[in-house]
Amino acid sequence: MLANRLEYSAENCSIARTLEIVGEKWTLLVLREAFYGVRRFADFLTAIGCARNILSDRLATLVEHDVLERCSYREAGQRERYEYRLTAKGLDLLPAVVALMQWGDRYLADGQRPPVHITHRGCDAPVRAEIVCATGHRDLTAQQTTVSPGPGAIAK
Amino acid sequence: MLANRLEYSAENCSIARTLEIVGEKWTLLVLREAFYGVRRFADFLTAIGCARNILSDRLATLVEHDVLERCSYREAGQRERYEYRLTAKGLDLLPAVVALMQWGDRYLADGQRPPVHITHRGCDAPVRAEIVCATGHRDLTAQQTTVSPGPGAIAK
Repeated sequence: MLANRLEYSAENCSIARTLEIVGEKWTLLVLREAFYGVRRFADFLTAIGCARNILSDRLATLVEHDVLERCSYREAGQRERYEYRLTAKGLDLLPAVVALMQWGDRYLADGQRPPVHITHRGCDAPVRAEIVCATGHRDLTAQQTTVSPGPGAIAK
Repeated sequence: MLANRLEYSAENCSIARTLEIVGEKWTLLVLREAFYGVRRFADFLTAIGCARNILSDRLATLVEHDVLERCSYREAGQRERYEYRLTAKGLDLLPAVVALMQWGDRYLADGQRPPVHITHRGCDAPVRAEIVCATGHRDLTAQQTTVSPGPGAIAK
């Protein structure tokens, strides 16, 4: 157990702060589609199947927090439109998205058949999200790790 | 982009299914505390600071989905009580929890000071969630990966 867990505040918890931005079902589904390469409002709408106002709201939240950027484009003979692209900050959410997906693939997929494959472009091997340590030990389990207060820990 | 994204259904999406179980703020905070080693109702309540009925409800959800198990214990002179422990299925959520935390540490922590450290017991080095491929390439970015329909993909 985190030493003296109850002596520290959770007010500045990085998990809670992340969830305030992306911890809502529709927001994370928008993010999923962005990782699949979807960029246009109409395509998000088709892919996710939510109401237009929900999609507008979630896209605005992700733009506000610099997870997506809104870029204009214009096709021949059409008015100017906007598309939404992952920023560097957004792309950095890949481990979280892959980790949620692989847990679902392992425990919740019908007949253990994953609907989506993610592979490494360089060698075509499948990828996964793993816990690794700075000296190079891989695929660590919860039992192989230990938790302690960091420099930003706030005592109660 | 996932080839022909819009020709496939998202109805069996493993991310959406995972979120149906753990994609709710309080549920994920219960899970966070479980990874910190919290086991008892009163300690979850103190650590999270939510209402009792919310905590009861979220613990029940996690037990129902076999993420936590409810075990009885009795201290001398006290009535039987219950504690909640992560199952193997629950422990397997570590990469998702660490990935959400490290993104928050990187982009949302006050003064870039993480409130919590997670280290590898074997060598004390800090850990992180990374995308790795089956042949051993590490720390892959979104641009280094590609997405395609898996064996469970459902055409529309």
